[in-house]
Amino acid sequence: MSNEITAEVVSIGDELLIGQTMNTNAGWLGEQLALAGIRLRRVRTIGDDEAEILDALGTVGSPIVLITGGLGPTKDDITKEALCSFFGTRLVRHADIEARIAAFFQSIGRDPLEVNRAQADLPESCTVVPNERGTASGMWFEKDGRVFVSMPGVPYEMKAMVQSHVIPQLVQRFAPPSIVHRTLLTTGLGESHLAQRIAPWEDSLAVEGIKLAYLPSPGLVKLRLSTYANADFASARESVDRKAAELQALIPELIFGEGNDRIEAVVGYLLKERKHTLSLAESCTGGYVSHLITSVPGSSAYYIGGVVSYANAVKMEELGIPSDMLELNGAVSQPVVERMAAGVRAALRTDWSIALSGVAGPDGGTQEKPVGTVWIAVAGPPGVTSRKVFFPGTRDLVIKRSAIAGLDQLRHRLLAEG
Amino acid sequence: MSNEITAEVVSIGDELLIGQTMNTNAGWLGEQLALAGIRLRRVRTIGDDEAEILDALGTVGSPIVLITGGLGPTKDDITKEALCSFFGTRLVRHADIEARIAAFFQSIGRDPLEVNRAQADLPESCTVVPNERGTASGMWFEKDGRVFVSMPGVPYEMKAMVQSHVIPQLVQRFAPPSIVHRTLLTTGLGESHLAQRIAPWEDSLAVEGIKLAYLPSPGLVKLRLSTYANADFASARESVDRKAAELQALIPELIFGEGNDRIEAVVGYLLKERKHTLSLAESCTGGYVSHLITSVPGSSAYYIGGVVSYANAVKMEELGIPSDMLELNGAVSQPVVERMAAGVRAALRTDWSIALSGVAGPDGGTQEKPVGTVWIAVAGPPGVTSRKVFFPGTRDLVIKRSAIAGLDQLRHRLLAEG
Repeated sequence: MSNEITAEVVSIGDELLIGQTMNTNAGWLGEQLALAGIRLRRVRTIGDDEAEILDALGTVGSPIVLITGGLGPTKDDITKEALCSFFGTRLVRHADIEARIAAFFQSIGRDPLEVNRAQADLPESCTVVPNERGTASGMWFEKDGRVFVSMPGVPYEMKAMVQSHVIPQLVQRFAPPSIVHRTLLTTGLGESHLAQRIAPWEDSLAVEGIKLAYLPSPGLVKLRLSTYANADFASARESVDRKAAELQALIPELIFGEGNDRIEAVVGYLLKERKHTLSLAESCTGGYVSHLITSVPGSSAYYIGGVVSYANAVKMEELGIPSDMLELNGAVSQPVVERMAAGVRAALRTDWSIALSGVAGPDGGTQEKPVGTVWIAVAGPPGVTSRKVFFPGTRDLVIKRSAIAGLDQLRHRLLAEG
Repeated sequence: MSNEITAEVVSIGDELLIGQTMNTNAGWLGEQLALAGIRLRRVRTIGDDEAEILDALGTVGSPIVLITGGLGPTKDDITKEALCSFFGTRLVRHADIEARIAAFFQSIGRDPLEVNRAQADLPESCTVVPNERGTASGMWFEKDGRVFVSMPGVPYEMKAMVQSHVIPQLVQRFAPPSIVHRTLLTTGLGESHLAQRIAPWEDSLAVEGIKLAYLPSPGLVKLRLSTYANADFASARESVDRKAAELQALIPELIFGEGNDRIEAVVGYLLKERKHTLSLAESCTGGYVSHLITSVPGSSAYYIGGVVSYANAVKMEELGIPSDMLELNGAVSQPVVERMAAGVRAALRTDWSIALSGVAGPDGGTQEKPVGTVWIAVAGPPGVTSRKVFFPGTRDLVIKRSAIAGLDQLRHRLLAEG
C-alpha cells in the first residue's frame, strides 16, 4: 500500500530482559494497530536506562511510536526524565492529576505518599492521556511530524488507554486505510488439513483483495479475513461478509464461533438457551474440562458438577462401571467411556454429560492404545454417542486437545437436537 | 561490572508483529543469558524483511547477537539470504545436513521435498550449530569481534540449541563473570508483605554482593539470589548457600521448593514418599486443583479422583452434606467445607483429601462473604483442619490462588505428620 501507515513499539523495563516478565504488550499492540489499519514495523525492548531510551527514540523510522513502561513511582522508573531530555522540556506538576491521585488513594483508605503525588509531575510540552485504571498518566508528544505516546507497562492500564484514547486519536490524526476483518474460529481439523480442505476457496480470496491468516493454538485454528476498505467501505464489508458466509457453508461443522468466543462459553450458551444441565466424568483430562466450563462466569446456571475418576475404583463405585467391563476392555475403551457418560448423567441427574478416558502419557501407552488415544462419549436425552480420537503430543497437549474435542462433541449434539 | 558482557536479541517474524505469536523466546533467552553471567541489553522484533534485518544487524552495540526466526522452508522465510548479504557470503548445500534431513523424513515415512532438502543450503562462511530437534540448522558467524548466532524461532528447537551449544560456546569464547544463583519458591504471602517480613535479611545481602529479585506470579513469589563469582567461585557459592539457609530458617513455612519445582509436584512427591493417596472435593475451583494434580506425570500413583460439587445437590448426594447444614451455614462455610473433605475422603477411601468452597465471582458475593472468600479444608488420618482465606481479584485469580492455597495447606499437613 502506498498510503500505508507504520508504527514502532518501544518497551522499557529491566524485568523484560531477564525473563521476569514476558513482554505481552508488544504483540497485543501489534494486533490492535493491525485492526486499525496501521502496520507495526518493529518492536524494541530495552532496560530502564536513559542512554538506551534516547538511542531508541532517536532512531525511529515510523510516524507513530508507542512507548510502554518505566512510569512507576519508584527510583528505577526513569522514562519521564528521558522523555524530558529527548523533547527538551521539563516536569511540571499537574494540579488536576494530583487531585485525582489523592482521591484515588483516599478511596482505598490510604493517604498518598509524596512518591505517589509525584506521578502528577509530567513533561510540560505533552498532552496528557488519561489513565482510567491507575495513577500513571499517558503522554502524547509530537515532534518532526511523528507522534510519540508514552504509556504505563501494566497491561490492564495500558490496554484501556489504547482502546479509549490512543487508537481513536491515531486514526483521526493519520487516517490509515480502513480495515474490514472477521475472525472465524474452528476446531476439529489441524492447520494443514484445514488449509487443504479450503484451498479452492482460499485461492478465490486474492481477486477480492482479501488476506487470510491462520492463527493456530492447541485444538483450535482461527481464520482471520481482512481487507483494506480504501474509498468504498460498504463494498469491502460486503465482500468480507460474503467470503465468510462461503466459508461457513464450506465447513459448517468446524466453525464454532467468531472473534473472542471461547468454545466452553459457546457450549454454555447453548445449554442455557435450552435450559439444559451438564455433568462431567473425566479420566485422562483430570478435571481440565470442568475447569474450562467453570472458568465461564455464570456457569453454575447449567453445570451441576463432575467426577474425576482417575482410579478404576472410582469408575466402578461412583459411575457404576462393572468390574468385568473394565477387565475385558480396559479403562480406555468405548463401552467404558459410554458407561461413564451414562453413569454420571444418572448420578447427577443432568440432561447432558461428557465422559473422557484416554492415555495422556508420557507413560501408559501400548501398541494398541498409544499415548494420545482418547475415547470421548456424550450422553443426552436421545442417548449416548462416542468416538475415538488420537492426539499425539505432550501430556499437556493431549489433555488440552481432548478437552476441546469433548466440548465440540457436545456442541454438535446440542445443535443436532435443535 | 567493568568486565560485563552484553548481548542483543533480534527476533524475526511477521507473526510476532500482528499478535499472532507471542515472542516468548526473547524473555527466555534473557533469563538463560543472565544465568550464564551475560546481560541482555536489548531485544528487537522485526518482520521477515531483508532491509529491516540488515538494519538491525548493522546497528548492534553488543559483542553477542542472538537471532531467532525466519529459517523455515517457505518463501517468506528470508533470514538466510539476509545473513549472506550481511556477511558477504553465499549459500552452499551441506551434504551431511541434507543426509540428516532425508533420514529424518524417511523416519516418519515421508520423502523429503526439494524445499525440505533446501534447508541444507547454509551460508559458506558460517559454522553450523546442530539442531537436534528439527531440520533448520543454527549458524554461528564472527565479524569485527562480534558473534552472531542465527537460530530457528520454534521454541522447542531453539531452546535445545541454546542449552547444548550456544551458551557453552559463548561462555568459552567470552568468559563472562560466573554467576552463582539459587531460586527459592514461596507461597502464602504476597510480594509486599513478604518483602516487609524479610527486610532485615534482604538488607544484609548488599555487603556480600548478593542481589535479590522478586518474581511474582498468581499465588507464588520466587526469590532469586545471585552474585558474580569473580575469581573465587567457592566463596561466592558458600555465601549464596549461607544466605539461602538463613532465608529458609526465617520463613520455613513459606518456602515449598526451589528452581523449577511446582507445588503440585512437591505435594505429589510427599504423598508418594508416604505411600498415601489423595482425593478432592472442589466447588469454587471447579476442577482446577484436580487439573494441577493430574498435570504431573505419574500422578495416578497417588491421586484416586475427585468430585466437582458445583450444585448443592451434588454436595448432598455425593459428599453426604446434610441439607440443613447447607441451609443454616451456606455452601461457603466451615462446617460444609470440612464435611466435603471428610465426605470425599470416605467415599473414595483415600488417606488425604482437600475440599474448597468459595465465591469466585464476578457475581454471588455478599457483604458477609464478598467475592474472593474461600474456605479450604484438609482431611487426613489425624482429622480435619480448615481455614478461611480471602483473595480479592478476578474469577481467574480467585481460582488459581485458592488452588495453590489448598495444595499448600495439604503440604503443611503432610510435613506436620512427618
